Amino acid sequence: MRTRAAVALEAGKPLEVMEVNLEGPKAGEVLVEIKATGICHTDEFTLSGADPEGMFPAILGHEGAGVVVECGPGVTSLKPGDHVIPLYTPECRECEYCLNPKTNLCQSIRSTQGQGLMPDGTSRFSMLDGTPILHYMGCSTFANHTVLPEIALAKVRKDAPFDKICYIGCGVTTGIGAVINTAKVEIGSRAIVFGLGGIGLNVIQGLRLAGADQIVGVDLNDSKVPMAKQFGMTDFVNPTEVSGDLVGHLVELTGGGADYTFDATGNVDVMRTALESAHKGWGESVIIGVAPAGAEISTRPFQLVTGRVWRGTAFGGASGRTDVPKIVDWYMDGKIEIDPMITHTMPLDDINKGFDLMHAGKSIRSVVLY
Amino acid sequence: MRTRAAVALEAGKPLEVMEVNLEGPKAGEVLVEIKATGICHTDEFTLSGADPEGMFPAILGHEGAGVVVECGPGVTSLKPGDHVIPLYTPECRECEYCLNPKTNLCQSIRSTQGQGLMPDGTSRFSMLDGTPILHYMGCSTFANHTVLPEIALAKVRKDAPFDKICYIGCGVTTGIGAVINTAKVEIGSRAIVFGLGGIGLNVIQGLRLAGADQIVGVDLNDSKVPMAKQFGMTDFVNPTEVSGDLVGHLVELTGGGADYTFDATGNVDVMRTALESAHKGWGESVIIGVAPAGAEISTRPFQLVTGRVWRGTAFGGASGRTDVPKIVDWYMDGKIEIDPMITHTMPLDDINKGFDLMHAGKSIRSVVLY
Repeated sequence: MRTRAAVALEAGKPLEVMEVNLEGPKAGEVLVEIKATGICHTDEFTLSGADPEGMFPAILGHEGAGVVVECGPGVTSLKPGDHVIPLYTPECRECEYCLNPKTNLCQSIRSTQGQGLMPDGTSRFSMLDGTPILHYMGCSTFANHTVLPEIALAKVRKDAPFDKICYIGCGVTTGIGAVINTAKVEIGSRAIVFGLGGIGLNVIQGLRLAGADQIVGVDLNDSKVPMAKQFGMTDFVNPTEVSGDLVGHLVELTGGGADYTFDATGNVDVMRTALESAHKGWGESVIIGVAPAGAEISTRPFQLVTGRVWRGTAFGGASGRTDVPKIVDWYMDGKIEIDPMITHTMPLDDINKGFDLMHAGKSIRSVVLY
Repeated sequence: MRTRAAVALEAGKPLEVMEVNLEGPKAGEVLVEIKATGICHTDEFTLSGADPEGMFPAILGHEGAGVVVECGPGVTSLKPGDHVIPLYTPECRECEYCLNPKTNLCQSIRSTQGQGLMPDGTSRFSMLDGTPILHYMGCSTFANHTVLPEIALAKVRKDAPFDKICYIGCGVTTGIGAVINTAKVEIGSRAIVFGLGGIGLNVIQGLRLAGADQIVGVDLNDSKVPMAKQFGMTDFVNPTEVSGDLVGHLVELTGGGADYTFDATGNVDVMRTALESAHKGWGESVIIGVAPAGAEISTRPFQLVTGRVWRGTAFGGASGRTDVPKIVDWYMDGKIEIDPMITHTMPLDDINKGFDLMHAGKSIRSVVLY
């Protein structure tokens, strides 16, 4: 079949919206009509050329929601008409990782996904001239139709709006999951969130959901304050307005350091500050942000020997087929908010405007509506 | 009263055995006759002058066992004749730290202990000319008699031999506790221990006690192998005999990385290797060793984002008054071994020979018998 897609032809160039060929689903695969997709910093990271693993031409996008059109042979858990959210971290429920409750990093299709291919080692997308186009993060939601493995689709309720729940495919789950699955924050905790962008806001509402007593937001930009307060931030610190040591200031503000700190910036210096502003004896710091290639985190080992713990999280520690439908329920039940974070919507033809808004710092999330 | 002690008069000089004055116990304090004390690398670290917090003159030693001679006013949990092990990490059972099950770092007497003083801000020791002598780590077990706060003494059974259980005051508890309290190793785990000295051997027997399936020891010195095997090591790796990447070798040897790794070297490069040889998704690495002043650990944040956890431990995460008596029981019941690690004993007059043996790498533990 043919479908329309925004294709990344090469690094550093705008996406090109065009007709592409899409082969139907093979065994264990599912054809999905994407109804909406968010534009995430990770798409930008790859498109910019900064991602050392980026490959082109490819159809980017990994934060979508849509409807099952057709199932390949052997697919048992989905049928045409089901509403789904694509998962860049799949959940096969059979590999060593899926069977270990300590991790969500299903490895069953890891190597082919990393190469931009379906599990059989080929691509379903091609140019009209036959040139293959790579998949991206196993999702490629910047196409109106895409093919995914059954294990990379979370089935969700049909009354949830695509233009909002697409954000659960990455940002919402990453932020809330970092709190609930990775840090396992307890009621009454004190926390610090570094970076009040889309991920940071979701960390904040995850902390509110978990019953944190104090939620400190740290950002260089005061304009982030109103939205962060709306999501649950109790205290704000702008490092440019702190005289003296930022760690000392944060430790004092949190009565000895935070029980949990979260880096949602990707800056390795901020990651260090996050660790060191965690409470002696038990404070845990979670790295969410993706650092530039080659960047390293550092600290004195004394910080760990005196009881701090340094962790990271990917996709919020969520096992997607199991956890994503629950988060959709939380949204529909009003336990979490998404609507205020979807600051812009646009048709596929205007997708590059979404990247422009991101560069200009004017959007929290832009969503493409097909 | 007067007692005999090995006094550290200044950094880098041998200890001097001499008569000293010892004031009796004040309120909440206990006079203890030390019967045996181990000589630990931490004593050496301070005596050498490398410890930036080292102060002189002081009576070092923190790994002792002895008998209560006299209790000051208000002491309720101990009486003369009780057998005790001094605790450099006390357990007041009242401070914010003692009341948090995630930490053992009781802070109730932290500031005065760090200054070499009793909780009232004074020292009980002095030279015969009246010059004050500082306490060390709240213990000063290189004196035949010493005074400690009640909260810094673990009461232990009377049939346990002082010359063995003194080692539970530091090395045994640090190593075994890192496994049981800090890492909480599960039965069937795979583990790697870096450094097969006194701490490393105790980590190994902790892993055996916890039911680990694979216990890999890593050391530059092949002569450590027989003893490490005796304590439970299943595989040995000498990095000088590995061609290529040590991390890759260890990951392959452990079937994808170890569930738990332990640094017992204090070398920050080894700490990085320990973290990176932990299993993707769930591997945890525990720093036990004390690094040189100013040294820093580093890694790429990707190591944490893909599921590894970096921790540290002090005194094996043990709450001393609660946990040390249990470890004494484990020794008496044959669950753990101590005797083969006590490689040398000597009278107080020969204490400097113990340091010489340590420098020469000839001892695992030297114990001074009073």
